[in-house]
Amino acid sequence: MSKSFTPELLTPNAADIEEFDALFRLSSAIGATPAGGLHRLSASAEDGQVRDLFCDWLTGHGFDVRVDAVGNVFGLITFDPAAPYLLCGSHLDSQPSAGRFDGIYGVLAGAVAVASLARQLRERGETPACNLAVVNWTNEEGARFQPSLIGSSVFTGAMSVEQALACRDGDGVSLEQALRGIGYLGDAMVDLPVAGYVEIHVEQGPALEAQGQAIGVVRETWAALKKRVRFDGEQNHTGPTPMAARRDALLAAAHAITAVRAEVERHGLEMHSSVGRLEIYPNSPNVVPSRVSLLVEFRSRDVERLAAAGERFDVTLQDIAAKTSTGFEVESSVLREPVKLHHGFAELAYSVAHELGLPTGNSITVSGHDALSLNRRYPACLLFVPSSNGVSHNEAEYTRDEDLHNGLRLLTSLLHRACSSPASFN
Amino acid sequence: MSKSFTPELLTPNAADIEEFDALFRLSSAIGATPAGGLHRLSASAEDGQVRDLFCDWLTGHGFDVRVDAVGNVFGLITFDPAAPYLLCGSHLDSQPSAGRFDGIYGVLAGAVAVASLARQLRERGETPACNLAVVNWTNEEGARFQPSLIGSSVFTGAMSVEQALACRDGDGVSLEQALRGIGYLGDAMVDLPVAGYVEIHVEQGPALEAQGQAIGVVRETWAALKKRVRFDGEQNHTGPTPMAARRDALLAAAHAITAVRAEVERHGLEMHSSVGRLEIYPNSPNVVPSRVSLLVEFRSRDVERLAAAGERFDVTLQDIAAKTSTGFEVESSVLREPVKLHHGFAELAYSVAHELGLPTGNSITVSGHDALSLNRRYPACLLFVPSSNGVSHNEAEYTRDEDLHNGLRLLTSLLHRACSSPASFN
Repeated sequence: MSKSFTPELLTPNAADIEEFDALFRLSSAIGATPAGGLHRLSASAEDGQVRDLFCDWLTGHGFDVRVDAVGNVFGLITFDPAAPYLLCGSHLDSQPSAGRFDGIYGVLAGAVAVASLARQLRERGETPACNLAVVNWTNEEGARFQPSLIGSSVFTGAMSVEQALACRDGDGVSLEQALRGIGYLGDAMVDLPVAGYVEIHVEQGPALEAQGQAIGVVRETWAALKKRVRFDGEQNHTGPTPMAARRDALLAAAHAITAVRAEVERHGLEMHSSVGRLEIYPNSPNVVPSRVSLLVEFRSRDVERLAAAGERFDVTLQDIAAKTSTGFEVESSVLREPVKLHHGFAELAYSVAHELGLPTGNSITVSGHDALSLNRRYPACLLFVPSSNGVSHNEAEYTRDEDLHNGLRLLTSLLHRACSSPASFN
Repeated sequence: MSKSFTPELLTPNAADIEEFDALFRLSSAIGATPAGGLHRLSASAEDGQVRDLFCDWLTGHGFDVRVDAVGNVFGLITFDPAAPYLLCGSHLDSQPSAGRFDGIYGVLAGAVAVASLARQLRERGETPACNLAVVNWTNEEGARFQPSLIGSSVFTGAMSVEQALACRDGDGVSLEQALRGIGYLGDAMVDLPVAGYVEIHVEQGPALEAQGQAIGVVRETWAALKKRVRFDGEQNHTGPTPMAARRDALLAAAHAITAVRAEVERHGLEMHSSVGRLEIYPNSPNVVPSRVSLLVEFRSRDVERLAAAGERFDVTLQDIAAKTSTGFEVESSVLREPVKLHHGFAELAYSVAHELGLPTGNSITVSGHDALSLNRRYPACLLFVPSSNGVSHNEAEYTRDEDLHNGLRLLTSLLHRACSSPASFN
């Protein structure tokens, strides 16, 4: 299309920005921690409260609210029932004692952007080529229920509703029970024709701040290799049992954790890794642990590097099992291939950010996001705003108001351009 | 005293032994695991059920049952209200998915021994110098509530009732709430004048079996150094956070666990050690752990060796904290001095076992027992029967009927000799 067909960019007005600030403050109070963070696990009572807030806000602003069979909440603005939807959003759940921004920003900025845009389009008597929608995806974090990205994975068909609802938390409560408990278990999936998906998120790393940029347009992801490894030893008394007779699954796990770090140190800046979660049985004083499971991950841009690291780690596991007289099983090993985000959508975002005068760079994401689920089936765009000091999954997570507002402006304008002219990104 | 004053030894008859077998079978069914073990944590519903069984049995056999302020259950047989009590017993609680014998044997053998002896003494018209009692101590294991040995420690005054009742399990339930819940929170401590204490227990190690002995008379204990260490890191995202910026408390803990094993390997057979329990926060996938506490123990007969190991370990903790950019605190460090059991009582037990024709040796205990609490204030005697393969704190824990019955005979005869003539052990 020639430049002359490009519509003027709509942006949120001062009242919209105040409305965003107010909504964000209300969200921050639900599940707030004394240190200024947020503890709002998926499908918890607090998650129920913030969902109620979100739904009330949507209804009050003319959205049609739908809840699907895995608790995803959609707010729809329909201009033309025959047109597809341009969808934006993220997630309202958090990690334990984490930050107020991760995911939440994308949902609330999305709601305000769509409401602002819908109002302005109606005032101008314009009917865009796409309808608009905002979404809150269920259990993005994977903190209470594993795996992560459950809501968006079911939406794209990568996971079944039955699998999702059967996931259980550490207390044995299923996602189905938990969603029913907070009143967010819908009857069926929402059949939504999607023209494209936009997610704006805090960066969770230090690059944008270091480079003095307001916006990062995510072009690609790192790959990830995630393994769940179980060591089996023998439960025994920590006192009288001779050392030579011990088969200590926790000692084996400790060797595995230090081996993960030793592996990643071979790769300089090219690999990240941590063991974030351990399940120990019986985890009792005076008892040699008999069973320990570790969630191990290696992340790198370079998938061959990852595969080689994974193979070396498997050999190391054999050595550890031999020297600790334990057995082990790799219960699961999932390689997430690196993903390229939709090129045309990223180019459009870059150009809109440029039009708005926002210093913008290209980003790469190491962490998973719902946008990566959506990207499998639809044109998807993932945008970052700066994270202060790169801190994330921490109560000290912080993004300045100025950066939040820049992102809101970009999101509104990008949705405007994309819904007016889907050809501009396709 | 001259030999001529020694009374004939009373032993249980065939009906007593059948009664013991039946009672032990009933106990084994409460909290039974599919693999033939027992899961009966202190003050749980299952603990309540086995306490009910125990109290009903005592009442049915003429004992006066008393429950004290920390849930210890006493069964008293009083011949002379002015005389002190010879007490025997152990504990009915278990570790998670553990064995049917640990502690339970001493309580049930004690009940049957006292009942048998009381019946025979009455039949003979004899009034012994001591009354008799059996006790079930609360929370010996320290699995659900820490520390271990709570009931016997309060009884001897080493711990206050208030401290004991305030202990909380992993779900935040206090011992007071749990005991009230199962109906075993008494009003006050039982003021019992104690002439001596006898505890019979499975060995939990392989020595008696290896030496072909039926009984071990415990003469002394190993010392133990128990430390609770906390590492403090920083919660962050396991993905984008640069490796150099990570302060991973779980990585630090893993280094500490391997360091504990490296330390103990310097000492050959002279030291035992394990890390049985870890508390990890937030223990969530995708989050670098910010806080990990470890329960570390070193055990040795040689207290100077232990102290030196503890000092080296403290230096190692500093090195680990420095290389992982974490902080650490040794939250508690308790040195349990080695204990010599009461000499006269051990000698008496040895001689009674010899009279009964039981192959008997001297034992040393590495694990803690209620008898060690009691030994601080009263003459205490600790006896072992063999453990098959030395396996303990495990569903496969096993002691043959023949060994259980030998122990029951010894316990009955020892109580008889001791209650008839307290001078024989003092």
